Amino acid sequence: MKLSVIDSVEQARQKLMKYAESIRLTTEKIPFEDSMDRIAAENVFSIYDIPAFNRSAVDGFAVISKDTAAVSESLPSMLTQTGDIRIGEHVDFCINSGECAYVPTGGMLPKNADAVVMVEYSESFGGDGIALYKPAAFGENVVFAGEDIRSGGLLIKKGKKIRASEIGALAAAGLKEVSVYKPLRLTIISTGDELTKPGEQLSAGRVYDINTYTLKALAEKNGFKVVNTALLPDDRDLLEQTVRNALLGSDIVTISGGSSRGKADYTGEVLEKISSPGVFTWGIAVKPGKPTIFAYDKPSETLLAGLPGHPVSAMIVFEAFICDFWRKLTGCENPRLIPARLTVNVPSSPGKHTFCPVRLFV
Amino acid sequence: MKLSVIDSVEQARQKLMKYAESIRLTTEKIPFEDSMDRIAAENVFSIYDIPAFNRSAVDGFAVISKDTAAVSESLPSMLTQTGDIRIGEHVDFCINSGECAYVPTGGMLPKNADAVVMVEYSESFGGDGIALYKPAAFGENVVFAGEDIRSGGLLIKKGKKIRASEIGALAAAGLKEVSVYKPLRLTIISTGDELTKPGEQLSAGRVYDINTYTLKALAEKNGFKVVNTALLPDDRDLLEQTVRNALLGSDIVTISGGSSRGKADYTGEVLEKISSPGVFTWGIAVKPGKPTIFAYDKPSETLLAGLPGHPVSAMIVFEAFICDFWRKLTGCENPRLIPARLTVNVPSSPGKHTFCPVRLFV
Repeated sequence: MKLSVIDSVEQARQKLMKYAESIRLTTEKIPFEDSMDRIAAENVFSIYDIPAFNRSAVDGFAVISKDTAAVSESLPSMLTQTGDIRIGEHVDFCINSGECAYVPTGGMLPKNADAVVMVEYSESFGGDGIALYKPAAFGENVVFAGEDIRSGGLLIKKGKKIRASEIGALAAAGLKEVSVYKPLRLTIISTGDELTKPGEQLSAGRVYDINTYTLKALAEKNGFKVVNTALLPDDRDLLEQTVRNALLGSDIVTISGGSSRGKADYTGEVLEKISSPGVFTWGIAVKPGKPTIFAYDKPSETLLAGLPGHPVSAMIVFEAFICDFWRKLTGCENPRLIPARLTVNVPSSPGKHTFCPVRLFV
Repeated sequence: MKLSVIDSVEQARQKLMKYAESIRLTTEKIPFEDSMDRIAAENVFSIYDIPAFNRSAVDGFAVISKDTAAVSESLPSMLTQTGDIRIGEHVDFCINSGECAYVPTGGMLPKNADAVVMVEYSESFGGDGIALYKPAAFGENVVFAGEDIRSGGLLIKKGKKIRASEIGALAAAGLKEVSVYKPLRLTIISTGDELTKPGEQLSAGRVYDINTYTLKALAEKNGFKVVNTALLPDDRDLLEQTVRNALLGSDIVTISGGSSRGKADYTGEVLEKISSPGVFTWGIAVKPGKPTIFAYDKPSETLLAGLPGHPVSAMIVFEAFICDFWRKLTGCENPRLIPARLTVNVPSSPGKHTFCPVRLFV
């Protein structure tokens, strides 16, 4: 078996980006309302001002702010109401000095109006007479056209993971569809003579397969599409055939178990045999997760990953390298780091990068 | 219109729990591998020791630790190899003092063995002779039966939101199914004469409906099942009819817009008319989100919520009250609080609880 120097975390990550850069990242246009947790594949700009018109933020009277300059409880501004605007109505009249118009929350302001006095501070004097008991500064209780987003302004940045607020921005801009990255297709292979499918009878000396399920859950949560899973005994030919088949319809194939140097550890050998340029990372200076192998097959544009058999290690390596790779490929932000203080000492192995699952308390 | 004292955040939350406690929380058994992000509806116990047998954590030689007590590079322990264990094999022999057996990572230890010396520190002398160059303390490189989880031990606590690691625990215990809470059924109604469906032509004075989509995304992310959505003009009868219909197949109905006191704000009136015991919260001392109404209809066991029309306010109220209610009902942990320092002053309105969306930087 080939021996070589193991990679640091950064070396392995850089190699992943270098070797697998030709993985086809395809995009698709989907209805904006189905885009939750997907990653935007292009910058999205608004083609309108949002709002498209000067809008009242309250129920009240649209005024020319100067007309309310020095008013108070004892010295109201006496104005003539020249309009009663309804929500959703197109307003095409203007008010002049001395005039006002009723406008509901969200309603369009008449021309010349630059502020709104809340209805709570008004009194009607019958006919058209309205007394306003509070001054309104320029822009008070008004959302001006384009104040939220200018026409041509950036709504969503390429690489942004879409959340409810981005869905709201797309709705506000009237966009029906959004371009997102198609998920990479993943095949998950779990190997080991000792593995039994959960729910089946467990004979002595054997354990249940865990990695298929933890990796599938993690992968789907992180935006991959799991196209196939397989549970295999330690059989070199069967592994080779299964991985060869997986190359056809997957962008990434993970094989957990068999990535270290034991008697029945065929993963590296098989990956080296069937992929070209082949294995580029034999082991990473990481704890847990040292027995990790990465290979690339250029003809089929498939990334191959031999993950540790230990379930926690496999999850950590999947998160730290495969999910990280997907985020780098799509330009998606990393999850936010949260500084915290450990309550117990976690010794680090010399020369190794330690990943340690923690529970966060405040 | 009925006037009453507005609730504090805690009062509103307590009333929600009190009035809506009869909402039927039903459970379902689902395949464990489909349970990601669902909430466990019962404590799950392991019916096995995990692992079920003493297991090696490395490739090496299973020994009786005392036999390696004082060994070193220059003074190895000379043992007789009496077994060559394969992974997944049921081991029913024992080793005696002076004996050892090869065992792969994850393999079952023979009886009497209480430690494993890594294969790196061994040398074969042909025949059955094995030299071990490193001592192994009791338990070294061994995972004893039940060390991960004892038979009868708690795997998942009732109310726990299931993540990849819980799915792994279920797999490890060989459990095929898990009991989780069925999502509450939600109808989302968005009201306002000014609202236009995204993607349709926008006439002057109108804006696109946002709340239907932001609330649907938030709701699904938080484990609700959105059974229906409706976009309505400000029409009292239509609102009443739509809410009456929604009572039949929903556990929660949200109506955004129309929850304050303007001319066209019918929500409170309609909810008071059609539900019994009716409205129990008229406004909450929260910013944003003051114009929030909660009502309960006992005959249909439906919680009714009048949310603010402003999209950010509606999202905040949905998260702070409806999602909070669902977590309390299921006993699910709240999202972890993360202490952070504001980079700008956020003035709080006197007497109001302020919710403010933030961006977290390290």
